[in-house]
Amino acid sequence: MASSTATQFSLSLSAKHAAPTTASKLPTRVSSLQKPNLVPPHFGLRCSHSQSVPLSKSRICASSAQVMDPVTSKNEPTIVDVDLGNRSYPIYIGSALLHKPELLQRHVHGKRVLVVTNNTVAPLYLDKVIDALTKGNPNVSVESVILPDGEQYKDMDTLMKVFDKAIESRLDRRSTFVALGGGVIGDMCGYAAASFLRGVNFIQIPTTVMAQVDSSVGGKTGINHRLGKNLIGAFYQPQCVLIDTDTLNTLPDRELASGFAEVIKYGLIRDAEFFEWQEKNMQALMARDPAALAYAIKRSCENKAEVVSLDEKESGMRATLNLGHTFGHAIETGVGYGQWLHGEAVAAGTVMAVDMSYRLGWIDDSIVKRVGDILKQAKLPTTPPEIMTVDMFKSVMAVDKKVADGLLRLILLKGPLGNCVFTGDYDRKALDDTLHAFCKS
Amino acid sequence: MASSTATQFSLSLSAKHAAPTTASKLPTRVSSLQKPNLVPPHFGLRCSHSQSVPLSKSRICASSAQVMDPVTSKNEPTIVDVDLGNRSYPIYIGSALLHKPELLQRHVHGKRVLVVTNNTVAPLYLDKVIDALTKGNPNVSVESVILPDGEQYKDMDTLMKVFDKAIESRLDRRSTFVALGGGVIGDMCGYAAASFLRGVNFIQIPTTVMAQVDSSVGGKTGINHRLGKNLIGAFYQPQCVLIDTDTLNTLPDRELASGFAEVIKYGLIRDAEFFEWQEKNMQALMARDPAALAYAIKRSCENKAEVVSLDEKESGMRATLNLGHTFGHAIETGVGYGQWLHGEAVAAGTVMAVDMSYRLGWIDDSIVKRVGDILKQAKLPTTPPEIMTVDMFKSVMAVDKKVADGLLRLILLKGPLGNCVFTGDYDRKALDDTLHAFCKS
Repeated sequence: MASSTATQFSLSLSAKHAAPTTASKLPTRVSSLQKPNLVPPHFGLRCSHSQSVPLSKSRICASSAQVMDPVTSKNEPTIVDVDLGNRSYPIYIGSALLHKPELLQRHVHGKRVLVVTNNTVAPLYLDKVIDALTKGNPNVSVESVILPDGEQYKDMDTLMKVFDKAIESRLDRRSTFVALGGGVIGDMCGYAAASFLRGVNFIQIPTTVMAQVDSSVGGKTGINHRLGKNLIGAFYQPQCVLIDTDTLNTLPDRELASGFAEVIKYGLIRDAEFFEWQEKNMQALMARDPAALAYAIKRSCENKAEVVSLDEKESGMRATLNLGHTFGHAIETGVGYGQWLHGEAVAAGTVMAVDMSYRLGWIDDSIVKRVGDILKQAKLPTTPPEIMTVDMFKSVMAVDKKVADGLLRLILLKGPLGNCVFTGDYDRKALDDTLHAFCKS
Repeated sequence: MASSTATQFSLSLSAKHAAPTTASKLPTRVSSLQKPNLVPPHFGLRCSHSQSVPLSKSRICASSAQVMDPVTSKNEPTIVDVDLGNRSYPIYIGSALLHKPELLQRHVHGKRVLVVTNNTVAPLYLDKVIDALTKGNPNVSVESVILPDGEQYKDMDTLMKVFDKAIESRLDRRSTFVALGGGVIGDMCGYAAASFLRGVNFIQIPTTVMAQVDSSVGGKTGINHRLGKNLIGAFYQPQCVLIDTDTLNTLPDRELASGFAEVIKYGLIRDAEFFEWQEKNMQALMARDPAALAYAIKRSCENKAEVVSLDEKESGMRATLNLGHTFGHAIETGVGYGQWLHGEAVAAGTVMAVDMSYRLGWIDDSIVKRVGDILKQAKLPTTPPEIMTVDMFKSVMAVDKKVADGLLRLILLKGPLGNCVFTGDYDRKALDDTLHAFCKS
């Protein structure tokens, strides 16, 4: 069963984080300098960002730091750097960041901004974002385009509305696009920014857990095709990601839980301690404990930033971030975009990937149980919808981006908790058995 | 009148080329090793492509060389390298190159190929290209998608047909897209390759003069928007450009002449000797003299390759390749895509840019006359169509990609023949005077 071509990923973060082990030990404010003992130490490799030394592959890394400003230290954001040489950028994480215009404004290029958002988020935060972009900065003019909300609108027709608005507004190459919303808005705005005039600057302001812990970081942009998710797009990095955790106050419960599917993923593929922390703190997360949310977001961003820094274009390690996604994308495509939330489909897909890993003999049954338990704590589905058939799974999975020369590669768990492989070298029977176990036909 | 912010570009090639000065002195076969004295010497800076030394900006360059194979030296292609570090690629130029499968096959990644072409070119060359891709290489399977021919189809709806075909054919990330046709096909196929699964490999096989001397080289890809040309796209470099000069045998006269507008451009902006050669050899070019065509294509590619190597993303010098294009794009958009050929619009636009340069006092009247004369020799238009108004020009030019913070920058000639500037620092009255001189209202 051992895979000769698989790449094993087991960069445990165990030695790098001081993770609180109970909810009561949570930092009350992750970004607070007043409680340094509760803030996990700096993550992983640290980089100096000297402009005089060219960055090379061997130096890319992710690091987190805090703004050290004695005057305004209260409520200062935590900063996680995505280190990609001259395309590096910061992720700002904290409360009330939309009330700090200087954070956004330092990343605006040119005098024209286009905010891309949707009809759910616009009434809540568009004015705040326009204020943050223009306060004390009268030279900047802001246009906005409000798209319909939902995965079913992540398509070429809706994308064209962004181009229409940008062109009608006579935006030029020195403009900046701002994505304000969840993963759909971030992916579409990013792809529009990558393509408009062959590329303009953009900024991510994610307002869902899903976008804050995953999709806004790392530069994957794109739209869906009726035959599959994210099949058209670009790798295109933002200037910064600004995560104002207060925006989660307006997030529906179902959307909140959906984001936790990606949080759980980081624990499973590379960060066992984080998974254990989640097992103890899922109730706090579901109850929207601000400190628990802030910690989960920060640690997720650190994981994502490190993986992206090491493998921007997904030649290997980055693919592991797609645990459960191949099954999950099949569900989203099969039931119709927008019926299941992305994280709900990923949750069911994760259970299927874990089931298959167990059938291959790569993990023991305690991991299977723990995955099921934590997803249930998060009120996430652990089986695909009943309408999914084996053939529907196989049909969509055949056009997955991880197919290479006709062979479907999957992310599967292997070894102790926190370890996974990305491989096409597995017993096809295990895949068949998993599909048949989860589908009625 | 002197421009303080303009960048002057005057990299004359005069010392680098041994250009024949009369048609009778033309090499009978540019690529023939039997007549080395007739082949211009290696162009510009030469690079070794050692894998062990990382290429840096200071080392990028363009160079030309010939394949040195004693067995098959007859009809071997000339090679012009586009040097862009790890994204470098060769341009092969020669006769009967579609009968050399090894040239294409060395650049095919994976086992699946999608040829993108149109309904004019497909009956002529699609079978030949499929043969070249598969001869002696049975593992490769080739799909094709045949688009309608014409600039009016360079849009999102037509682009989606490429994605549809690629996805329905279950092409994966290791596939290769091949653009077979003119500039429209190259731009669309390139943008499709840039976007499909966030980027797959692609190859350019240009079959028009326009595509062979300009659009297939340098990685500019994209589609039109109803409000302007090439407003949606990507910088995305091919694996190689294969120019089989025999494909010009089937090119209509009007298309042939259209391509010469770009050939003339290289002379005007940076290569006075080449312009002088064209003045003496335009009749040979119009008569499709194979050696004259081969020389014009090769020298144009050398000029393009050098500019692209020095400024891939058009931060300055590369913009000079757009001499006449801002006026020309306005014409194409104004009269409707597909009514005027691109080169026809560029020709009229070049006359307007030259007129404006003269009004600014930047060139003397002999250049104005020589530009008009050579365009007339090439049977190209020297005035915009009568329906164009000053307002139509201004409206389209306002969304040009060279607008920055509201200021339209133009490429204008300045100084002796072969010198130009890219600048927004010019007297607005000169632009107005030029527009009014060429428009009735």
